[in-house]
Amino acid sequence: MIGIGVIGYGYWGPNLVRNFAELDECRVAAVCDRDAERRKRVAKRYPAVRTFAEASELIADPDVHAVAIATPVASHYELALAALQAGKHVLVEKPLASSAAQCARLVEEAQTRGLVLMVDHTFLYTGAVEKIGELVRSGELGDVLYYDSVRVNLGLFQPDVDVIWDLAVHDLSIMDAVLPAKPRAVQAAGIRHLEGQQVNMAYLTIKYDEALIAHLHMNWLAPVKIRRTLIGGSTKMIVYDDLEPSEKIRVYDRGVSMLDRNSEDGRSVYKMLAYRRTGDMWAPKLRATEALDLEARHFLDCVAGRAKPLTDGASGLRIVRLLEAASESLERDGAWVELPAE
Amino acid sequence: MIGIGVIGYGYWGPNLVRNFAELDECRVAAVCDRDAERRKRVAKRYPAVRTFAEASELIADPDVHAVAIATPVASHYELALAALQAGKHVLVEKPLASSAAQCARLVEEAQTRGLVLMVDHTFLYTGAVEKIGELVRSGELGDVLYYDSVRVNLGLFQPDVDVIWDLAVHDLSIMDAVLPAKPRAVQAAGIRHLEGQQVNMAYLTIKYDEALIAHLHMNWLAPVKIRRTLIGGSTKMIVYDDLEPSEKIRVYDRGVSMLDRNSEDGRSVYKMLAYRRTGDMWAPKLRATEALDLEARHFLDCVAGRAKPLTDGASGLRIVRLLEAASESLERDGAWVELPAE
Amino acid sequence: MIGIGVIGYGYWGPNLVRNFAELDECRVAAVCDRDAERRKRVAKRYPAVRTFAEASELIADPDVHAVAIATPVASHYELALAALQAGKHVLVEKPLASSAAQCARLVEEAQTRGLVLMVDHTFLYTGAVEKIGELVRSGELGDVLYYDSVRVNLGLFQPDVDVIWDLAVHDLSIMDAVLPAKPRAVQAAGIRHLEGQQVNMAYLTIKYDEALIAHLHMNWLAPVKIRRTLIGGSTKMIVYDDLEPSEKIRVYDRGVSMLDRNSEDGRSVYKMLAYRRTGDMWAPKLRATEALDLEARHFLDCVAGRAKPLTDGASGLRIVRLLEAASESLERDGAWVELPAE
Amino acid sequence: MIGIGVIGYGYWGPNLVRNFAELDECRVAAVCDRDAERRKRVAKRYPAVRTFAEASELIADPDVHAVAIATPVASHYELALAALQAGKHVLVEKPLASSAAQCARLVEEAQTRGLVLMVDHTFLYTGAVEKIGELVRSGELGDVLYYDSVRVNLGLFQPDVDVIWDLAVHDLSIMDAVLPAKPRAVQAAGIRHLEGQQVNMAYLTIKYDEALIAHLHMNWLAPVKIRRTLIGGSTKMIVYDDLEPSEKIRVYDRGVSMLDRNSEDGRSVYKMLAYRRTGDMWAPKLRATEALDLEARHFLDCVAGRAKPLTDGASGLRIVRLLEAASESLERDGAWVELPAE
Repeated sequence: MIGIGVIGYGYWGPNLVRNFAELDECRVAAVCDRDAERRKRVAKRYPAVRTFAEASELIADPDVHAVAIATPVASHYELALAALQAGKHVLVEKPLASSAAQCARLVEEAQTRGLVLMVDHTFLYTGAVEKIGELVRSGELGDVLYYDSVRVNLGLFQPDVDVIWDLAVHDLSIMDAVLPAKPRAVQAAGIRHLEGQQVNMAYLTIKYDEALIAHLHMNWLAPVKIRRTLIGGSTKMIVYDDLEPSEKIRVYDRGVSMLDRNSEDGRSVYKMLAYRRTGDMWAPKLRATEALDLEARHFLDCVAGRAKPLTDGASGLRIVRLLEAASESLERDGAWVELPAE
Repeated sequence: MIGIGVIGYGYWGPNLVRNFAELDECRVAAVCDRDAERRKRVAKRYPAVRTFAEASELIADPDVHAVAIATPVASHYELALAALQAGKHVLVEKPLASSAAQCARLVEEAQTRGLVLMVDHTFLYTGAVEKIGELVRSGELGDVLYYDSVRVNLGLFQPDVDVIWDLAVHDLSIMDAVLPAKPRAVQAAGIRHLEGQQVNMAYLTIKYDEALIAHLHMNWLAPVKIRRTLIGGSTKMIVYDDLEPSEKIRVYDRGVSMLDRNSEDGRSVYKMLAYRRTGDMWAPKLRATEALDLEARHFLDCVAGRAKPLTDGASGLRIVRLLEAASESLERDGAWVELPAE
Repeated sequence: MIGIGVIGYGYWGPNLVRNFAELDECRVAAVCDRDAERRKRVAKRYPAVRTFAEASELIADPDVHAVAIATPVASHYELALAALQAGKHVLVEKPLASSAAQCARLVEEAQTRGLVLMVDHTFLYTGAVEKIGELVRSGELGDVLYYDSVRVNLGLFQPDVDVIWDLAVHDLSIMDAVLPAKPRAVQAAGIRHLEGQQVNMAYLTIKYDEALIAHLHMNWLAPVKIRRTLIGGSTKMIVYDDLEPSEKIRVYDRGVSMLDRNSEDGRSVYKMLAYRRTGDMWAPKLRATEALDLEARHFLDCVAGRAKPLTDGASGLRIVRLLEAASESLERDGAWVELPAE
Repeated sequence: MIGIGVIGYGYWGPNLVRNFAELDECRVAAVCDRDAERRKRVAKRYPAVRTFAEASELIADPDVHAVAIATPVASHYELALAALQAGKHVLVEKPLASSAAQCARLVEEAQTRGLVLMVDHTFLYTGAVEKIGELVRSGELGDVLYYDSVRVNLGLFQPDVDVIWDLAVHDLSIMDAVLPAKPRAVQAAGIRHLEGQQVNMAYLTIKYDEALIAHLHMNWLAPVKIRRTLIGGSTKMIVYDDLEPSEKIRVYDRGVSMLDRNSEDGRSVYKMLAYRRTGDMWAPKLRATEALDLEARHFLDCVAGRAKPLTDGASGLRIVRLLEAASESLERDGAWVELPAE
């Protein structure tokens, strides 16, 4: 049975532990956190799980075959590298690391050693994103025209990352998986409302190598929580509202039509294009499984050699490249930053 | 009694005619449209109203003391100028004209002749925008941190103006009236999804001379209609949803608080800032009068010398300056375009 | 050209006048209202329309071929009868009259004289109710299991009718048109919160001659406006929300399934039935024409002998029979009141 | 430290175990379920917790000082009585038992033995219901005029209880706690859409000893989930929507006003009463703690002698009396069933 070690028992770690603990194919062997209070909580909830204050001890534990890392971003690289070098498979919370260079190094290390390196891009394991991917790939949307996402709420000011690295990563991973084109350049605008703090509100615009535009709005200072994505296609369009309890995905049936408008006297003849609703709205049934449960099982399958990670190190690297480009654009006051052709 | 002449009986003209026709202080003397079918409709609805095919005839009509112009943007300047030069007061549908230079010329002409020049920035006459203005000016929001607006729907592709000139003008006029700072620079990104057509989807970012950012999303190709503006303040925040039937304005009571988080071992001491909800949400009662009714009455008051236009030519000029800057930024691939200090 | 006379220019009358005035097949010849202020408003809006203070004069006007009645319920019978006896076709606002006996008399009079008698059950001319009817009749819902409607808001206390006669009439006319079974008995509960006033809040339960139950909630004292109807079928279910701007009808695809749950030790074996969502939700496109426009055209078609009224006097009679039964149940403290087999 | 034993590990039991397991003031000593699969799940999640197949063994366990019962209703009485007789404090899932007689017997037994008997009316521990209670008791609503609740969804057909015993119990417990009057009589209408099954859809009307009416709609066959309660007061009104993520309680400021409407000719003079919105809507901040967490702590406080149960056996008895009356009304085809004066 695969032994799992979880590093970090703050916000996300408990979810990882809970999900792995429910699975028969593995057991949670150890949890590590520097905070004694948190270790006490682990001990109360899971008396059989070993706890450590130091990550190095957990990584060294022979009962730990795979390590899940849920610590602040700055520590991802060092911890993941140590785990890989100790021969352990690794699942890292998003984003994979603090720079594309770090990501590339981790991908290489995992490949060399034949170990699984997976990033916790959780949204890719939801029924909603799965369905969006199907709709795009099947051609049902027609040409994808745009991806517009609003991801705002009243949130914590993260001390170590700005709002782009905190929130955009979700959309970037979804876009990486479902959009049919490759990003070409990134432009960012942002503001820090509190001196000495991170940029807390930002807008990203992304150009693609096709007639497709993507735009993201991220905000830690919004009065309400909004998670709404519009995906426009030439024949159908999607509204994805992640806060809807039951109908997260709505597909709108639209068709373009050409209208000729001729005024009688011939002086103001012109053509007008209108997109109109030729059909109906449709909310497809979505798979209901919890995303993290599915992801945990998938990770175990990968570790067991039965699957390749859907969210592998390479995808983690692609997303971090976009984040780096966004940061650079922010620094250069909104200049377009080109992305390297892969 | 003031005689009103309305030029253009397409989409907006019928609303102007209907509203002026209901008021006791004026009478609709004439309506002009080149389309015979539309003139026939006027004649059936308002048998006492004179109809013309040519604007020059309406302007020359001695029973017409004030002219309302509801024609395509390209014709605003010429028609308004002719009306002013004929000594008529003028109300022009937004935007005031096709360029800042034209706007300035109209403002000058009206001033020289002592005539009223008013722009139909209808939103400023709504109870919702009135309330937003009060909340900002009273200091209830604290410092205004941002203005973020989404104004999208499945709309006609206008043949003569792009989506910015069509839709942004609403937000720009609201911002002009309620924001406490002056715009300094504009950045635009947009895309035309249909060759040979206008830009149909665009994003505007506006920098101000204070720590305030504004951002607008306009889209003629959205599957759903959204009219939602978030206005963030340092002590309170507003969500303005113009599609809500009864509670268009929601005020969220938030306060910023400083949290000290010290992990026990002293190694990961850091401070975190969080905005949290200290209080409640509140939807103030709004004035219910139809905006256009109030605006029509206000125009008559101005014509009668009892008031100064809330939406005067100067405001029309300021908005068109922003639109011009946005167009320039679009052409220059998203470069920041500075605005002249007034 | 058919000359229309409208009696009553209070709340609903202006809508009738406006709609008939737009049609080419008729002209509004006369409007009657006892209130001079209202007559003045008619004169200002429609200078060519004759105005009367007395209904008898309008009915006697030879230019009036058909009369639309939009007065308080108590006067419907007398006015409609007078108009029919003067040889005029009649359209009466809902409910048709104050009692089933009166309704029957009007139906008879119209039949004898070969005149059109139509009731203004406006909802039957909406795209939403049209679609519900199609879904029921096509068998797509399966067996209809229930009709549950909430129709509440903060409304005027009508002086002449209670909340049931004011609001239930809408649902009763919809049910009359779309439900496949006949009502058998009615039970009502209600309360008057203000002494000396009408019952302002009520619940109606209706039994049918099949395994179908209907229930209505009407309330003049609700803090919010709700217009929501659930229609349950054995294979599909409808949510009809009349306040939704675009998706008024949502069809939910459900199927019943039998689950066997056997606990291992055999002691707690039981079967459980669950309705579950096997498929998707679907919001069909609805016809967008204004109901009253369609209804006005239909009335003219009937007058011209080209159609039979969808909402004829007989349907008006059936609805008033239900209202009478509801009133009787209210008086008898909620006893079931049987309806006569037709 | 108080030792908790939980009987039943089906739908609700796991929540009880999870919440008690998190508290420092107690430990979960034992869990009992006849299903081996469920016991295995307990063992995996909580290796330190003893598991039993037979409730009698758990009750006899000396480490168990208090018993929480989360089994089908029919078994509540027998299990609770056995636990009390073994000297254990008891928390029972709602409803307390299958009959008022059983409830009375349990209340007596607990009283005699000086043990805590608490019912799991969870809603009373939510921030929303707490706030409603405050608003009513403070007089802010004025006189309470009505309580109208819709509690519908697509649910399991319970084999042992009908939809009233399953769902109404929530509202009845809320009403018991917040309404200022005593219920006097109950009327029920319901239908079983599947032969041989429980009544799956029902309406309850309740008369009070003041001018107050309550009405509940319960439905296992609704296409959508609705949890919406309207509470009308003479000065303010509440909309309580339990599915709203953040603003569950909305308070509408309304005032009644008398309008005199005199038509000019004196013939139709009448008075009209209108409730209108004089003020604003307000969504007060609610306590955010999980209800079950608060309830578990409260139970421990009661066991420790530091508090009296908010939801004691007596309240459980009052609710079951109402349920019995509802069942009797159902059997008697909707006749009013009087409640005994306490």
